Amino acid sequence: MQLQCPLPKLDFEYITLGHGSGGLLTHKLLESGVFDILSNEHLDKQDDGAFLTLKHEIAVTTDSFVISPIFFPGGNIGELSVFGTVNDLAMCGADPKYLTLSFIIEEGLLFKEFWEVLVGIKWAADKANVKIVTGDTKVVDRGKADKIFINTTGIGEVHSNAKIDINRIKVGDKIICSGNVATHGMAIMSVREGLEFESTIESDTQELNHLTAALIKQYGSAIKFLRDPTRGGLGTILAEISKDTNVGIDVLHDSIPIDPLVFSACELLGLDPIYVANEGIFICIIDGQVAEDATEFLQKLAYGENAAIIGEIVEDHPNKTVLVSPIGGRRVINLPVGEQLPRIC
Amino acid sequence: MQLQCPLPKLDFEYITLGHGSGGLLTHKLLESGVFDILSNEHLDKQDDGAFLTLKHEIAVTTDSFVISPIFFPGGNIGELSVFGTVNDLAMCGADPKYLTLSFIIEEGLLFKEFWEVLVGIKWAADKANVKIVTGDTKVVDRGKADKIFINTTGIGEVHSNAKIDINRIKVGDKIICSGNVATHGMAIMSVREGLEFESTIESDTQELNHLTAALIKQYGSAIKFLRDPTRGGLGTILAEISKDTNVGIDVLHDSIPIDPLVFSACELLGLDPIYVANEGIFICIIDGQVAEDATEFLQKLAYGENAAIIGEIVEDHPNKTVLVSPIGGRRVINLPVGEQLPRIC
Repeated sequence: MQLQCPLPKLDFEYITLGHGSGGLLTHKLLESGVFDILSNEHLDKQDDGAFLTLKHEIAVTTDSFVISPIFFPGGNIGELSVFGTVNDLAMCGADPKYLTLSFIIEEGLLFKEFWEVLVGIKWAADKANVKIVTGDTKVVDRGKADKIFINTTGIGEVHSNAKIDINRIKVGDKIICSGNVATHGMAIMSVREGLEFESTIESDTQELNHLTAALIKQYGSAIKFLRDPTRGGLGTILAEISKDTNVGIDVLHDSIPIDPLVFSACELLGLDPIYVANEGIFICIIDGQVAEDATEFLQKLAYGENAAIIGEIVEDHPNKTVLVSPIGGRRVINLPVGEQLPRIC
Repeated sequence: MQLQCPLPKLDFEYITLGHGSGGLLTHKLLESGVFDILSNEHLDKQDDGAFLTLKHEIAVTTDSFVISPIFFPGGNIGELSVFGTVNDLAMCGADPKYLTLSFIIEEGLLFKEFWEVLVGIKWAADKANVKIVTGDTKVVDRGKADKIFINTTGIGEVHSNAKIDINRIKVGDKIICSGNVATHGMAIMSVREGLEFESTIESDTQELNHLTAALIKQYGSAIKFLRDPTRGGLGTILAEISKDTNVGIDVLHDSIPIDPLVFSACELLGLDPIYVANEGIFICIIDGQVAEDATEFLQKLAYGENAAIIGEIVEDHPNKTVLVSPIGGRRVINLPVGEQLPRIC
């Protein structure tokens, strides 16, 4: 990413409790930094709330980001907070328009780190074409948080020809995975474990709304379901779908796209890639008739290059997702009990 | 408050990292507890986002709550999180309709405490007539947060005859304070300092949307500005208004409503009540012609019993708020630099 933002005008080195007081220090922090960098006609009003005019039907989603470390190969918590919520809206079949932004900062966070996070937020919001319309800043004492937590809540307008509804999934539908799995999780893990590979694994945190908008425009109601497999990975999402809708899912192990380096890293750490978190891919359950065509369509678009059909909805084993190995071995994919990689988003 | 909610069906004593994994433990936490208690037609869908149909113009506001302690006389962090955001929407001249709810939980939080917070959220949402439509739960390791932080983001429909606009404030307008000041801050402070008075000071955390709706219905565009003086108290809000709009404000010290017990507690601790946080009052800047009438109107309604005119917009000293003492002494109210009472909301 390129840093083309205004330079900070602030003279303090780190954030203190006073910056969360609502008093003069808070004003300084906001006026000399935040409002400058994130400027738009809504935020510039500096009201406690934002007034918006929207189409009839909207989608709303919220997410708090607690990722550790806050800077990682391929991104930072700021970008992730924007892309994460943008993508949740995209998965609702909506066009993301507005975000709210709320910080919980641990006293002692270096201001230059805060600034870098802000720059990431600005860059990501521009890239996803959303506006930050209102926000909140709280500071807690040292040792009562971990550098910075960010909540974003997003509002989007539902695409008029989207008909995303998990209950429309039926036998014969195919499952497309839009890109390589397990990249985000392994990027974070390799930093935490201090692993070095031939090249760095970079998080795939990126906006998916342009890709889903193109897909919805082209295929409309043939698209039954969209979901980004973040926490818990591909396996958790598929297990949830078969559980929630009582359908059977067959997934072909070797059709799941994965970067060879990420695959090796997973092997090395003994992690199953289907349970590793992603931030820049989605799965699409689509009418079997157009699945091939839609996959080729995605492959021609940015972030869709590695799209592949990875499975289908089947009549057998309702309620269960089954992974089929190249030699025909079959194992049920269950919901993982706990945490493979905590604080991944 | 009355506990009439379903009893929890869960068999774990405290929250672990696994409850934030997105896996089976997260499902258990949500399905056996959260969804039951907060049930409504939007949340019951258990999607990542909520689909809403709203009027043309909406107001949006966000707030993260980090109050310590999470249980305090007169409320808990759950109720506060609902009322705080509801009130911010009310101050925008909007009718609060929907909230998103996001938890950041420290590993080790007792489940019974989490449950009590949830019950508080449910009770407050019903009281304010808003629905929780979507949410998120994250768990961080012990020592990386402080029990629980909550973000709520609210969406409301703007009242058709509201014309809240800080730039419409002009000389001759009066300032009404809807109730006693400094109550919330002193309730928290007395717990932190272990102070005991003749009777307990209880936080005034409560929903203000019904009161502002009645006021807007009755007085429409005569109302120029509404704001709840939370962090930083009455003094900070008034100093901000005179600074932002370049008007002068005179406040009559003895007209500011305050409970005698709260006043004594402030004296004892050496705190200036005008800078102490509130959660259940608002100030209204209104056309001078109807100010007396509007004050009497408020006094007849719940939460408005102690409403009083506390000052007015004057031609003198633009850009400054001046506190006038009973004997005519005058002092400028400045923005406080830092934090009088950290983590008050």
